[in-house]
Amino acid sequence: MFEVRERDGLGRIGVMETRHGRVTTPALLPVVNPNRPIIPPADLANRFHAEILMTNAYILGRGPHRESVLRQGLHEFLGFSGAIMTDSGAFQSHVYGDVDVTNAEVIEFQKRIGTDFGTMLDVFSEPSHDRTQAAADVEETIRRAKEADSLRGEMALVGAVQGGLHPDLRERCAREVSTLGVSVCAIGGVVPLLESYRFQDLVRVIIASKKGLDPAKPVHLFGAGHPLVFPLAALLGCDLFDSASYAQYARDGRMLFPDGTRRASELRESGCPCPVCTDHAMREIAEDEALLAEHNLHTCFSAVREVRRAIAHGDLWELVERRARAHPTLLVALRELRHHNEFLEEFEPVARRGALYYVGPETAHRPVLHRFRRRLMERYQPPSAKGLVVLPENRRPFTEAYASAVARVMETSDVHAVVKSIWGPVPLELDHVWPMAQSVVPDSLDVESLEAAEVFFREWAEGAGYPFGL
Amino acid sequence: MFEVRERDGLGRIGVMETRHGRVTTPALLPVVNPNRPIIPPADLANRFHAEILMTNAYILGRGPHRESVLRQGLHEFLGFSGAIMTDSGAFQSHVYGDVDVTNAEVIEFQKRIGTDFGTMLDVFSEPSHDRTQAAADVEETIRRAKEADSLRGEMALVGAVQGGLHPDLRERCAREVSTLGVSVCAIGGVVPLLESYRFQDLVRVIIASKKGLDPAKPVHLFGAGHPLVFPLAALLGCDLFDSASYAQYARDGRMLFPDGTRRASELRESGCPCPVCTDHAMREIAEDEALLAEHNLHTCFSAVREVRRAIAHGDLWELVERRARAHPTLLVALRELRHHNEFLEEFEPVARRGALYYVGPETAHRPVLHRFRRRLMERYQPPSAKGLVVLPENRRPFTEAYASAVARVMETSDVHAVVKSIWGPVPLELDHVWPMAQSVVPDSLDVESLEAAEVFFREWAEGAGYPFGL
Repeated sequence: MFEVRERDGLGRIGVMETRHGRVTTPALLPVVNPNRPIIPPADLANRFHAEILMTNAYILGRGPHRESVLRQGLHEFLGFSGAIMTDSGAFQSHVYGDVDVTNAEVIEFQKRIGTDFGTMLDVFSEPSHDRTQAAADVEETIRRAKEADSLRGEMALVGAVQGGLHPDLRERCAREVSTLGVSVCAIGGVVPLLESYRFQDLVRVIIASKKGLDPAKPVHLFGAGHPLVFPLAALLGCDLFDSASYAQYARDGRMLFPDGTRRASELRESGCPCPVCTDHAMREIAEDEALLAEHNLHTCFSAVREVRRAIAHGDLWELVERRARAHPTLLVALRELRHHNEFLEEFEPVARRGALYYVGPETAHRPVLHRFRRRLMERYQPPSAKGLVVLPENRRPFTEAYASAVARVMETSDVHAVVKSIWGPVPLELDHVWPMAQSVVPDSLDVESLEAAEVFFREWAEGAGYPFGL
Repeated sequence: MFEVRERDGLGRIGVMETRHGRVTTPALLPVVNPNRPIIPPADLANRFHAEILMTNAYILGRGPHRESVLRQGLHEFLGFSGAIMTDSGAFQSHVYGDVDVTNAEVIEFQKRIGTDFGTMLDVFSEPSHDRTQAAADVEETIRRAKEADSLRGEMALVGAVQGGLHPDLRERCAREVSTLGVSVCAIGGVVPLLESYRFQDLVRVIIASKKGLDPAKPVHLFGAGHPLVFPLAALLGCDLFDSASYAQYARDGRMLFPDGTRRASELRESGCPCPVCTDHAMREIAEDEALLAEHNLHTCFSAVREVRRAIAHGDLWELVERRARAHPTLLVALRELRHHNEFLEEFEPVARRGALYYVGPETAHRPVLHRFRRRLMERYQPPSAKGLVVLPENRRPFTEAYASAVARVMETSDVHAVVKSIWGPVPLELDHVWPMAQSVVPDSLDVESLEAAEVFFREWAEGAGYPFGL
């Protein structure tokens, strides 16, 4: 039902087969408020190419539309022929403290209205929950996941991962939930982190969850609807994003951009090439909630498509590193990644099509470069020689840049040549291992990169068996 | 005729009044090839909101259309009622080595066809030109500028700045040319730099030219048509960009993006929200030169509007620093800026509306922060006290973060409190000088920023008259 076609980092392009058509992931699920649909669902399909949307079963089940949606079925009620995922009320429990529906009731209701993906009623673990409380959230969530699995029938089930900021609880919950008959695993309880720009905590939560999740199942990051986070979350293996933000921000007069949020009334022009911004004056946009919502949707959809483009081209890491400069908190999240290299490295391809680009000092800590340095320590046997010639960073490939110089030295001396590169030591005979020769590095480097190069080099050189070189 | 409305860095939003309407700057001038207009000029106005375009008087004067354009006049010939700038053939001399027209002839022809901005025939200084040759280019360009000025009549004249990579020659040429009766000053000879991503040299050329230019006149960066360079060039005071790239790249099947160029046939989706990419399948776009050109125009126009948005909001520096991560050569260019702080600082406003955001270690070298540190050394008299309490970077404003701690220390000790911040030492009483309290800084910092903070602090502390503090 979920087939992975291409990968980059933990990100993947996949296809979900549903009873209402195919969904290419990473996908954006625009959230339709059944009481107040700002963009008609048919438009979401026709004008925005949405293959899947999301609406709220809890709200539908209690609101004025309950009888019509039960009678017509969800797809006819919304006028949308693509796939639909329904949410359960867990988020409402975060907002209101509690909800007056049971897990079994909400599963039953979702089956009856014919949703494509029905969500269990999980327990929203607040980031503030201490270990004891988060553990209780997790146990109850697992219990309800099992119950939902037993009740789901033919409905594809969305199982939720909770556990607050406790990595071991997240991993346990993920492992238990994803082994059940769930079709989509959803990482929940992250909206408070998103709202307060706690992206470093978001990284920790996603990685802990991914460690427990079945890699064959698509992963939904519940409530992540801002383009700021799509590249990073996709890199860490999130496949589905739902955006209520496009409508909520529009109602508040705010516009989403790939690099942040701006108030429409404060702009004379948006600098955005979307059809709304191309065809309408800024004043007109600022006063029209539907136009604002459309702009926000264009931004979100194209940001998700940009992520797919980057996965297909093997430059998702570059996209993430560049976008991290949009806000200091995103940069802190990017810098968190190096602490998870042992896990991230497992998912890195051996080579990519194109070159690896230096984006910032964080680049040197990419899993693929971590792997290069580790394998150098573990698997590489330096040739015996009397001395080591240490060459500085230069034009790549180094073998070409240094060909004549090295040849001259070799004629007279028993030495081995290694470049002290920004990514770590590169023995010349390994120059063509990707991405050593296939890197684009600036002519002048930041101090952090230079220091890292020095540290990487010394770590290797100490064990390499040469009297310290030239 | 040119009125500056808003400023940021050396960038400005201005209005040029022409006989064919107002032009808001920074502006993009799409280049219309008179022999092969891929997008009809009327469409450029109606669908892309172009207020000004550019075409080539040298090509018009020699080609099959010479008689019709002389008869109809340029605006009717092109079917464009906005402002038009014409180029002179100087670029053709770069491509073909020489052109068979004189400066006087091309000025006369431009007057006769009724262009809004006619360009002199300058001498294209190649980046490879040595000092002697570049000096000769400059002298001949100045001579022709004077000649053009004497011949221009009522036509608004574009005067060119040449001088290759020699800063003093650029500055001399700029000073001579911009004191003449020219309406627009154009920095020429930069296409070879743009084509080979020599952005550091581009920065040097623009800054040297700007030092000589009359700040009251709009500045055109000749041949800069890729969105990669718009933010940086605008920050350095370029107001007009002409893009032939949109058509040239389209002919070659390539798409422009704010972060680089991609081949359409290699993309399944572009990740771009423009009307072309929203309404058409990628395969269709890849096979249609006009759609590719339209996409490229949408990208270029919105990139210029984004620059205007950033100037209006006082965050052009942030935009430049973020975009510099799109390619390592742009980052080198960004790092070049700190060497020109004495000049750049003159144009910095005292404060902006919003906060200053850390983007990377380059941020600490922004002119406004350079100014803060310099004024601290030159104008700030630290209070006499027995000791100095040095507080680490913290939540801002520091006065609030450290209020209780400092109060306790002050009760018992005769000390002065200063924060060793990432931007430099901040005596607590200066905490509210913009942007010290109005900064967003990540929780974890790169080594280069930490080292810079240490250096800035020691430079100040050595002269502050305290025994080295706590």
